Amino acid sequence: MKAVVLRGDWEPKPEFRLGPKDIDQKQTYLGSKVWRNPCLGIEEVNIPEPGPGEVLIEVKACGICGSDVHMAQPDADGYIWYPGLTGFPAVLGHEFAGIVKKAGPGAVNKRTNKPFSGGEYVCAEEMLWCARCQPCADGYPNHCEHLDELGFNVDGAFARYIVVPDRVVWSLESLKKLYPGNDLFLAGSLVEPTSVAYNAVVQRAGGIKPGDNVVICGGGPVGLAACAILKSMGAARVILSEPEAGRAAIGRALGADFVVNPLTENFVERVLELTDGYGAKLYLEATGLPTIVYPLIEQCIWDGRTLNSTIVVVARADAKMPVTGEVLQVRRAQIVGAQGHSGEGTFPRVIEAMASGMNMLPMITKKITLDQVPEHIISLRTDRSECKITCLMD
Amino acid sequence: MKAVVLRGDWEPKPEFRLGPKDIDQKQTYLGSKVWRNPCLGIEEVNIPEPGPGEVLIEVKACGICGSDVHMAQPDADGYIWYPGLTGFPAVLGHEFAGIVKKAGPGAVNKRTNKPFSGGEYVCAEEMLWCARCQPCADGYPNHCEHLDELGFNVDGAFARYIVVPDRVVWSLESLKKLYPGNDLFLAGSLVEPTSVAYNAVVQRAGGIKPGDNVVICGGGPVGLAACAILKSMGAARVILSEPEAGRAAIGRALGADFVVNPLTENFVERVLELTDGYGAKLYLEATGLPTIVYPLIEQCIWDGRTLNSTIVVVARADAKMPVTGEVLQVRRAQIVGAQGHSGEGTFPRVIEAMASGMNMLPMITKKITLDQVPEHIISLRTDRSECKITCLMD
Amino acid sequence: MKAVVLRGDWEPKPEFRLGPKDIDQKQTYLGSKVWRNPCLGIEEVNIPEPGPGEVLIEVKACGICGSDVHMAQPDADGYIWYPGLTGFPAVLGHEFAGIVKKAGPGAVNKRTNKPFSGGEYVCAEEMLWCARCQPCADGYPNHCEHLDELGFNVDGAFARYIVVPDRVVWSLESLKKLYPGNDLFLAGSLVEPTSVAYNAVVQRAGGIKPGDNVVICGGGPVGLAACAILKSMGAARVILSEPEAGRAAIGRALGADFVVNPLTENFVERVLELTDGYGAKLYLEATGLPTIVYPLIEQCIWDGRTLNSTIVVVARADAKMPVTGEVLQVRRAQIVGAQGHSGEGTFPRVIEAMASGMNMLPMITKKITLDQVPEHIISLRTDRSECKITCLMD
Amino acid sequence: MKAVVLRGDWEPKPEFRLGPKDIDQKQTYLGSKVWRNPCLGIEEVNIPEPGPGEVLIEVKACGICGSDVHMAQPDADGYIWYPGLTGFPAVLGHEFAGIVKKAGPGAVNKRTNKPFSGGEYVCAEEMLWCARCQPCADGYPNHCEHLDELGFNVDGAFARYIVVPDRVVWSLESLKKLYPGNDLFLAGSLVEPTSVAYNAVVQRAGGIKPGDNVVICGGGPVGLAACAILKSMGAARVILSEPEAGRAAIGRALGADFVVNPLTENFVERVLELTDGYGAKLYLEATGLPTIVYPLIEQCIWDGRTLNSTIVVVARADAKMPVTGEVLQVRRAQIVGAQGHSGEGTFPRVIEAMASGMNMLPMITKKITLDQVPEHIISLRTDRSECKITCLMD
Repeated sequence: MKAVVLRGDWEPKPEFRLGPKDIDQKQTYLGSKVWRNPCLGIEEVNIPEPGPGEVLIEVKACGICGSDVHMAQPDADGYIWYPGLTGFPAVLGHEFAGIVKKAGPGAVNKRTNKPFSGGEYVCAEEMLWCARCQPCADGYPNHCEHLDELGFNVDGAFARYIVVPDRVVWSLESLKKLYPGNDLFLAGSLVEPTSVAYNAVVQRAGGIKPGDNVVICGGGPVGLAACAILKSMGAARVILSEPEAGRAAIGRALGADFVVNPLTENFVERVLELTDGYGAKLYLEATGLPTIVYPLIEQCIWDGRTLNSTIVVVARADAKMPVTGEVLQVRRAQIVGAQGHSGEGTFPRVIEAMASGMNMLPMITKKITLDQVPEHIISLRTDRSECKITCLMD
Repeated sequence: MKAVVLRGDWEPKPEFRLGPKDIDQKQTYLGSKVWRNPCLGIEEVNIPEPGPGEVLIEVKACGICGSDVHMAQPDADGYIWYPGLTGFPAVLGHEFAGIVKKAGPGAVNKRTNKPFSGGEYVCAEEMLWCARCQPCADGYPNHCEHLDELGFNVDGAFARYIVVPDRVVWSLESLKKLYPGNDLFLAGSLVEPTSVAYNAVVQRAGGIKPGDNVVICGGGPVGLAACAILKSMGAARVILSEPEAGRAAIGRALGADFVVNPLTENFVERVLELTDGYGAKLYLEATGLPTIVYPLIEQCIWDGRTLNSTIVVVARADAKMPVTGEVLQVRRAQIVGAQGHSGEGTFPRVIEAMASGMNMLPMITKKITLDQVPEHIISLRTDRSECKITCLMD
Repeated sequence: MKAVVLRGDWEPKPEFRLGPKDIDQKQTYLGSKVWRNPCLGIEEVNIPEPGPGEVLIEVKACGICGSDVHMAQPDADGYIWYPGLTGFPAVLGHEFAGIVKKAGPGAVNKRTNKPFSGGEYVCAEEMLWCARCQPCADGYPNHCEHLDELGFNVDGAFARYIVVPDRVVWSLESLKKLYPGNDLFLAGSLVEPTSVAYNAVVQRAGGIKPGDNVVICGGGPVGLAACAILKSMGAARVILSEPEAGRAAIGRALGADFVVNPLTENFVERVLELTDGYGAKLYLEATGLPTIVYPLIEQCIWDGRTLNSTIVVVARADAKMPVTGEVLQVRRAQIVGAQGHSGEGTFPRVIEAMASGMNMLPMITKKITLDQVPEHIISLRTDRSECKITCLMD
Repeated sequence: MKAVVLRGDWEPKPEFRLGPKDIDQKQTYLGSKVWRNPCLGIEEVNIPEPGPGEVLIEVKACGICGSDVHMAQPDADGYIWYPGLTGFPAVLGHEFAGIVKKAGPGAVNKRTNKPFSGGEYVCAEEMLWCARCQPCADGYPNHCEHLDELGFNVDGAFARYIVVPDRVVWSLESLKKLYPGNDLFLAGSLVEPTSVAYNAVVQRAGGIKPGDNVVICGGGPVGLAACAILKSMGAARVILSEPEAGRAAIGRALGADFVVNPLTENFVERVLELTDGYGAKLYLEATGLPTIVYPLIEQCIWDGRTLNSTIVVVARADAKMPVTGEVLQVRRAQIVGAQGHSGEGTFPRVIEAMASGMNMLPMITKKITLDQVPEHIISLRTDRSECKITCLMD
């Protein structure tokens, strides 16, 4: 079968020492320190076979994620931008939906609580948590100490078929009523990025109560998904901060009541004006620019009257945010970090929310074929006009 | 000014002993044991004057509550039905909205954090928590040990004017955008009953996460308000159990996705069918018939696959529910009791939710004048076709 | 090797229909409906071999649990008393500690996050959660839909060796400092029953805050363990209700400040007297007699002034408790069910608590050899004077 | 009566503009911007009279707080160090215990729920929350928008008598069993500072579960009290970071299992070593030097394996902490701010914890008379050898 394969040269930077989880020539936890000269292309690979507890899924739709872009993007020295777990060569793609074709022995369908049979419409988590380390045993699969990741160090979904363990597979059958034809698979391919946002604002931040205000900083897929989730959760005002007009429009379609352009408007003044001087209960940092964004959020909390605000940091960045403890004290506020999408009933709830009307499809701004995937992974390095570009298998 | 006044004879039943909080001839915590021959009428009373920390409000709208009906309703022996705190004679009425006319010294407007000035559109809590007992100091005003209640043992709002302490007054200014003319006051008069539901399903039950299912048993005002709140909070399916067609229709208008008629349908089968065999995360007992309803809810939990269900008991009843501990164990479920509407930011959140689109007005099925209030308090003893009857002051 | 094996005849009662999880002639979810003529003895069985992800443990200590007694105890018709998951013949025993002797491929030690090597001192959960059903994926292994249980339907630990999957194995290395010689294994064998109590009072009930009062009804191993846990958590007063003098003494040794004899004292009066009229924040029902105990607890809550009380039902019983919703409402109280001991970091926290001084050893009132296990499983049908009888492998 | 009175000159700095809550010549929210030339002395003042809802308390013991020191301490320009709410002249002193001598009309004793009568042993919150602003109505008195503070802008307790509103008074009667003679009042005077620590680690940080580790940075009174609270709550290891030997010794007496000297030891290595590489569930920043301390805490979290760590910032500082969002993400951690001691049942729980054995008396290193208070308020500017110096009224 045809697949979008990423290759790279294993050339660890001189100062980089392999850690206990890195595997020489094959896999590392710090991609940007090791992989050079990324090379992306369509290749012919074998159709995989499901082992015990695994299922073979025919992929119907798979979206391009920012991490796909960064894995295939070299910096000035030729090293890839993506800093995380990677093992090449690998088939990319992890935001997907499809149909179960075959099940290995013992593979169980969580929906029926019976062995998987073919024909089930499904999506899957990208994180292959091990189910045996301490974080997994304690209920925190997003922090698995033996993680594999679909489309990163394990073959992903930009291909006709993919094999995944049953424990990360979730049925999409309940979407059938509301999403005709390919819309079901397109919606299904959005479950994963929506779950990242859901994990951040619902599971980690503790959600909101109806009547609370929220501010979302950054209109990338996670920020946009957060707009939809929080509006569906009863936010009085969803305020999206995003300079790009196209993203702003999608934000409005998904549930943002107001959009602030932080480049042309005074963010703090505008947020306080829109909230009658209160500010917000929940602030989501989804820009990746926390050194710029955090001080603005902090000012909203300090100047506003809302107590108990929670700032959720979901965008990855290693920059230091300048945090004033006194603001957290006087306003009874907190900061939490969020990563991942697994566990705590996130995937099934996102699917049920979609099945009952939370429509994420406006996030998809372009549909392409498998052959077009590599060129779009490359064009997205610079193209901010598209939001989610999704491959529909013919 | 004219006011709807309830009088009664202080004739404690022979077996009844006054408790420490009862006051001979004037006030009791167990109305149905003491007050006989209730007499309801329009009387001329003095306009009250606000003391320190109090405000005088011109009432614009006030709804009739079931407790108004039961206070004025004699049983076979002539004793009133209402079992709670009562002190007669009293002006009835506690679900109201109006305009601040005058403020006593030191009365503070929570919206502006400044002394009250006239003209503010407001509503008020019905519970006059003391702010000095241990439950109040600990943050549980719904369980105040020195409670007074507007329209029960303190003069209420079926009159042109009412005086209330500032701490229970909440601004309705944010409703102005969405609710023109008298709609603002009608909506404002619904804040109190909506807050009872909000306290039950959000504060006490811990709310839901988007994608969860809920079942509301009983389409009285609290059950109907719960439909609106939980739909606004992202419930995948709001299932209302209610036999009366008119109430069912209001439930649908407020957010119920499905209505089950428990008299003609198999409640358990229907709930499981509508939820793909899962049942619900939250069950609200709002019928007052827990001995009938609880076993049905329990069966849904036992037969369904949902873990962590919460059953909230909000309707008052002293009957014993037959609870199987094993069901709570196997399904990781819990039962909570809910009373009141004060504290925890409930009133301001309900107002903000209404201000941003949670429209409760379909609950009001009839508008009347002050003169018509007594006859409607009496007709509601038997009339189930009306939901909320609200007095609009001319 | 020698092992304590339980056999029985597969004779389903006429009215009993096998469910989807029952396996004809081998395993059922309702033991007391199926197994007849239990027969307990020492047998010679093969030493098991660890498969992928499994470890072989040399058992050093294993306690007798009430369920061991009930599995081997016939009723008047010859059916076993134990109502749950069972698959015979099986080696009994699930409260054990020992030393890792051999590891199958891929078996990981959670303490080191590396492959298991021999010599690690360990204990194990009794519940073999599947790690692939929805409850497991959502973080609720105590409610696994594909559960196996050590010593119930899978061979247990009354034998020299046992094989278990790595995911349920927990290191006891941190006990070495405080527990010399066999004390380490005796303490380790108490981790499982202590975890059942911990799951009930900490995880399900939400624990307490320092200065809160608690009431423990029932001085069986779970109730006694709860005394120790809650005293270590800062309870102002731990009140144990238990009629048997020996159990009362153990309760005091483990942390109970007061013991009430419910057969000779007025439970409600005594609890209120000991708590200055407040009652308790947490009530644990660990007697198995909820129809007797619940009304007493309810009366304490109603007559006491404590708000937010939580009643945890941990003892198994299918009797209906008569619950007055009004009490839950007026006192802002709740009822929760608790089962199991897995997940949420319970095992590792119990071990660390023991390692830092929470001494559970007073629970063990007798030490026996493997050969003596069958006779003691039988004598415990009537003998209430012993608490925990533990087999020490020579 | 004699009283310790602080006076100062109202000389707002040129750049300082009075805010809405400042009162010219009398009171300000930013003391260090306004008050110059502090002057501390013993003066003769009138015995106050309790008004409605107030009680007159005969002071028996009152401790010196760091804020007393800073209010009376001029900087190089003569302005006081203390930056918060102040209104001079004022009697200082807010950590006190005494005996109720007289009650104004309507003043209620929370213990008995009846009007106060003389003779009750009591202590009081320092924060006079207004009970009418939005934070108070919502249950957050620590964030009252109309706060007065005993011994800051309202006359305090370094005097024979003090008047306070009933809502902040708490009975110490339950201490009588364990604390003979003056020990009761000394213990009672420690309820306030202990409640500040309790609010931080229990209410704001959510406490711990038995078996968790904690790290306390800073052995001032709040940090030391936190050691006692967290040890009483079941911490496996309480690690105190404190360079001063005397403070370290008090920390050990109160419950610290280990003390790290951050000036002579490698804090991060030592914490990881003591916790078997895990780090802690709760870190308390109680040094006031967050720019130094935060990076060390962050490193412990990053290098340790504990998930869900909470960092509580209780010491006041306006410096920016450099926070790496990625650490919060990867370790599922959070930062919360804590201020105050009121509400949520904190005072009564601290008293009950003390009554049942949590002994805070080791914190008091010196007892003095009223006449000696001014000189000790001054000597404490430099003297780190004393912990809590407490005035015992003769």
